[in-house]
Amino acid sequence: MKTAVLGATGYTGMLLVRLLAAHPRVDRVIPVSSSRAGEPVDSVDPALSGPLGLPVADTYASLTEAENDQFDVVFSALPHGISARRCLSFVDSAVVIDLSADFRFSSPARFEVAYGSPPPAPDAQERAVYGLCEWYRDEIVQSDLIANPGCYPTATLLPLLPLVHGGHIAGTIAIHAMSGISGAGRKKRIDLLYAERTENIAAYNPGTTHRHAHEIGEQLEAAGCDRPALFTPHLVPVKEGMAVTTTVPVDEPARAAEAIVNRYAGEPWVTATLDHCPEARHVRGTNRAIIGIRREEGHLVLMSVIDNLWKGASSQAIQNMNIRFGLDETSGLEYPGEL
Amino acid sequence: MKTAVLGATGYTGMLLVRLLAAHPRVDRVIPVSSSRAGEPVDSVDPALSGPLGLPVADTYASLTEAENDQFDVVFSALPHGISARRCLSFVDSAVVIDLSADFRFSSPARFEVAYGSPPPAPDAQERAVYGLCEWYRDEIVQSDLIANPGCYPTATLLPLLPLVHGGHIAGTIAIHAMSGISGAGRKKRIDLLYAERTENIAAYNPGTTHRHAHEIGEQLEAAGCDRPALFTPHLVPVKEGMAVTTTVPVDEPARAAEAIVNRYAGEPWVTATLDHCPEARHVRGTNRAIIGIRREEGHLVLMSVIDNLWKGASSQAIQNMNIRFGLDETSGLEYPGEL
Amino acid sequence: MKTAVLGATGYTGMLLVRLLAAHPRVDRVIPVSSSRAGEPVDSVDPALSGPLGLPVADTYASLTEAENDQFDVVFSALPHGISARRCLSFVDSAVVIDLSADFRFSSPARFEVAYGSPPPAPDAQERAVYGLCEWYRDEIVQSDLIANPGCYPTATLLPLLPLVHGGHIAGTIAIHAMSGISGAGRKKRIDLLYAERTENIAAYNPGTTHRHAHEIGEQLEAAGCDRPALFTPHLVPVKEGMAVTTTVPVDEPARAAEAIVNRYAGEPWVTATLDHCPEARHVRGTNRAIIGIRREEGHLVLMSVIDNLWKGASSQAIQNMNIRFGLDETSGLEYPGEL
Amino acid sequence: MKTAVLGATGYTGMLLVRLLAAHPRVDRVIPVSSSRAGEPVDSVDPALSGPLGLPVADTYASLTEAENDQFDVVFSALPHGISARRCLSFVDSAVVIDLSADFRFSSPARFEVAYGSPPPAPDAQERAVYGLCEWYRDEIVQSDLIANPGCYPTATLLPLLPLVHGGHIAGTIAIHAMSGISGAGRKKRIDLLYAERTENIAAYNPGTTHRHAHEIGEQLEAAGCDRPALFTPHLVPVKEGMAVTTTVPVDEPARAAEAIVNRYAGEPWVTATLDHCPEARHVRGTNRAIIGIRREEGHLVLMSVIDNLWKGASSQAIQNMNIRFGLDETSGLEYPGEL
Repeated sequence: MKTAVLGATGYTGMLLVRLLAAHPRVDRVIPVSSSRAGEPVDSVDPALSGPLGLPVADTYASLTEAENDQFDVVFSALPHGISARRCLSFVDSAVVIDLSADFRFSSPARFEVAYGSPPPAPDAQERAVYGLCEWYRDEIVQSDLIANPGCYPTATLLPLLPLVHGGHIAGTIAIHAMSGISGAGRKKRIDLLYAERTENIAAYNPGTTHRHAHEIGEQLEAAGCDRPALFTPHLVPVKEGMAVTTTVPVDEPARAAEAIVNRYAGEPWVTATLDHCPEARHVRGTNRAIIGIRREEGHLVLMSVIDNLWKGASSQAIQNMNIRFGLDETSGLEYPGEL
Repeated sequence: MKTAVLGATGYTGMLLVRLLAAHPRVDRVIPVSSSRAGEPVDSVDPALSGPLGLPVADTYASLTEAENDQFDVVFSALPHGISARRCLSFVDSAVVIDLSADFRFSSPARFEVAYGSPPPAPDAQERAVYGLCEWYRDEIVQSDLIANPGCYPTATLLPLLPLVHGGHIAGTIAIHAMSGISGAGRKKRIDLLYAERTENIAAYNPGTTHRHAHEIGEQLEAAGCDRPALFTPHLVPVKEGMAVTTTVPVDEPARAAEAIVNRYAGEPWVTATLDHCPEARHVRGTNRAIIGIRREEGHLVLMSVIDNLWKGASSQAIQNMNIRFGLDETSGLEYPGEL
Repeated sequence: MKTAVLGATGYTGMLLVRLLAAHPRVDRVIPVSSSRAGEPVDSVDPALSGPLGLPVADTYASLTEAENDQFDVVFSALPHGISARRCLSFVDSAVVIDLSADFRFSSPARFEVAYGSPPPAPDAQERAVYGLCEWYRDEIVQSDLIANPGCYPTATLLPLLPLVHGGHIAGTIAIHAMSGISGAGRKKRIDLLYAERTENIAAYNPGTTHRHAHEIGEQLEAAGCDRPALFTPHLVPVKEGMAVTTTVPVDEPARAAEAIVNRYAGEPWVTATLDHCPEARHVRGTNRAIIGIRREEGHLVLMSVIDNLWKGASSQAIQNMNIRFGLDETSGLEYPGEL
Repeated sequence: MKTAVLGATGYTGMLLVRLLAAHPRVDRVIPVSSSRAGEPVDSVDPALSGPLGLPVADTYASLTEAENDQFDVVFSALPHGISARRCLSFVDSAVVIDLSADFRFSSPARFEVAYGSPPPAPDAQERAVYGLCEWYRDEIVQSDLIANPGCYPTATLLPLLPLVHGGHIAGTIAIHAMSGISGAGRKKRIDLLYAERTENIAAYNPGTTHRHAHEIGEQLEAAGCDRPALFTPHLVPVKEGMAVTTTVPVDEPARAAEAIVNRYAGEPWVTATLDHCPEARHVRGTNRAIIGIRREEGHLVLMSVIDNLWKGASSQAIQNMNIRFGLDETSGLEYPGEL
């Protein structure tokens, strides 16, 4: 398969290039960047110039060059608002996997509340499927436009959706999330400097003010949830990693907990265990999500960890590609991750 | 004033020695350590041997030496279970401020649930006051045995107590906390190694299983709260610092939020602000607590930050000393903290 | 004393404001910023709005406002190239302490090699003194224009100058330095992001290519050194802190080591010890420099640590102010630093 | 191939198990631990229980069980002093790759100076080869006892050996190294705690006092070097990673630099480049070494980076296995590493 990565100089784009380069079914990866077109890819990511002879182009292609080329799969790691229009150039000739938010919302109104402007390509929305792999496999396998989920929604929805579908939730869903700094992107911002973030912890966009709160809300409602869900993210000083802890009233804690465990019993990438507190480092550099469940009187505490750049972005995009092309879902993702 | 610090080689004990040494009303600080008696104090804390001529003894005293001496104030930074008995040696001749949990609980049964054994000095419990400065000043000023609160309870109770007293809380209190690693103490444990904790995030002791959940629970109930409070702490890779985010249903969010803001309007060390997300680094190395409040439909999200070793332990102990001796509550704590 | 800080929104400027605010002889601090004039100072540094009633102006003054005001001391934390011209506005009416490089070089040619353009105010150079406190006290006390040294030169020169003056050095001086990231300033640069610097180590500007190599070279030569000195700095993932390790051939290691120890025997802020490896955290948040010396056959290994923002910048500027005004050199710097 | 890892619960042992599990020519990995025999391997390393069906035993074998089994390759990650005796149990029936220091020294006297006791298995020393892959390939391919080099020696010797062999070195070799904390092992030590090492930099064992100084010294002398080499390591707050900067007088800097570049021109895992400063993160999670060279008048500054757990230990051991069994040297090491 021949693949392209639009927006290949950010963290998720760089990781996509590396993952595709190591994928056994991928013959060619073209990193695309309008700001860096023509420059060597190892000027941004020196790992790509190593001894391994990776099947990656030596220089970044321009968008025009990419549009005049032919691909089996095109990934977009461009910013929301811009990504949709670029994806439309490829969607009739390739499978497109968009890591931006542009095709994640069924409701244009909700997109506008979350992102401050209408969805950039509303006419193409009905062709898109929400690429939360463990929940939308049947749709993903048939779709040519896959909207890869956000990192917070992935880590949040995996433990909650079985509760919603089982009708277990009995009160306010209190979601508190912690993310590594790479989640904010590779941007020139004072508040992302090492000296500002080391030894620091801070909440931001609390309650219903983070964009991902709306993405989570749409998915919970689509599954039948009518309880309020409040979502407060925090930045903590790690590069990659994410932990989400959710406290939720449920009618029958033991049965509700079992519903989660049973739902993921056969899944390669998601593990749910009772009375266990997962650590973010145990999934770092992997596509895994690990869920720990604590049963309390009338409540569950749900603890989930992922790597925000992997299962929260780039490796879930590879998992989506694997599903779409009928490959094993672990294909190209076999490495056991960081120590 | 002449002061002693029992257990002076741990993080809170070391910080107490430093803070007392810089306090304008303290003439003498005797660091006490049974394991290090006779050794130079700068073998543990080189900062004490600097150019400033601090009024600190050159070597650690043994407990016996301390018991044969006379002090105005004795601080104990010994482990729970051991601390109470040591404190009893001094409580008739000095003001004792105990940073352990041994005197924090009115209910012996609840102490035993939290700590796995009965309180070590139940007969002295009625002499003790819970040293959450902003709420127990009238009792602290009259007491010779002050039980300095835990770090998590301090950061959690400050925003919640005004809501409880005002009768605002209408559902489950979901408390999610993040602590710096120094909160676990200066102990030889694999899970506290740099290589285990850097770039890592992990929940532990979720729901009602952390000792501080019981300390929080007792205080909330004493204030009249009958709603469940679930408390899940997390370790994040910072040395000092703590952030607690609490999502709580309330009847009238605007009025409830005002109750918090108004309660702390005149306080030197606690600030509460609407629509503001505090950062842990802004209170690092200080006695400050900053509370941010987000109002949502039917709910509040409360975000509080402290330095776990300062307001969460040693500097709150100094504030308690200041209260007890009629000093200005900022005395000895005037430094603006870390950048 | 009434003081101003030009360039008060960077790390060294922010720290200067805090240190001046806590200084017992300072009545007033005016933070000056052309980009933030009129904005509240606690919008940049929330610590300044705390309970302590610090004698700091509420808003940033513009440069014009500052020029129309009267000060006893003016500190400049502006970038090199810009700083000198601003300092000249104040030097006839106030003591000026410039933290930029603009007045550090006696040789205009060497300045130009280091900074790529001629010194911006060559006519005023003869009025300036190099403010390495322990070596230029007699000049500092008489000068109204003090060029505060760079952080690397401070940590490097303190152990080397006694060797140069004693004629001990017998070969190439190999200087290897490690700095915290704050040394690069509070700038919007991709390579200073948390996600780029955490868990990373990298040399930069090796040999003779760093600006501070020239500052070190000029001082060594001025003291009579004719051996080559090669200087290679590294960025390591700490916010504040600096360690410099220098390997140098000497004729008589034992006597050479003694020369260093003896030179600093009476100094409040510099300690030199044989057979000791200092740690950067032991000087963090203080004006201290600690030097450890290892004697080898025909060589010394010199290990020095400072806090790059304190003794390497802002607190050495305060020490210079103390010297200039005949105050105790520890005045306003009494806090024992970070744990 | 069937493989065993002795001492499989430390950092290098854990990484060896993971790397062997992912190696295309390895069918079976038996992790061996006397302290954990019978316990599940995922109790120590949860990554091994993931979805990938790795060919790793479920529980740790005891040493006795391992001695009664048959292996093609046995790796030892046991501590020095203990490792040699364990290796001798396997060396007649399997290729043994020892990551301890026990077989690294030709000179028993030098081993004793470095390690404080005589080498534990001197009779077997002549069977051993020093496993610095790029320099001892011809010996490695014929040996059944490979002494895997130390991390500091690997990063130090790679740039220096071409200079020694070319006769370029003209004065004292000043080696200054920085290591991640994992290099000190997974041990219960106060000085390895997160709270002691974060935001800290410290030299230790300077000059000739670190064990690796002697390992470096033996190799340099064996290559014909008669100049003094002083080696000072530092701990910096990273988990994995190593940077070594060496300043060395040379007769002809341009030719000397070329000697290094040319020596590694065809090497898959070592890259040497003029006028380039390598960053440790660019080799993290890989077997790569990157060398940057700065030419100065009469000197070179050599900057080398490796991952201390990979090329500095476990992945170099895999490279040694690849060489010994005639496999491609990149086999099993194809992953592009951490972002």
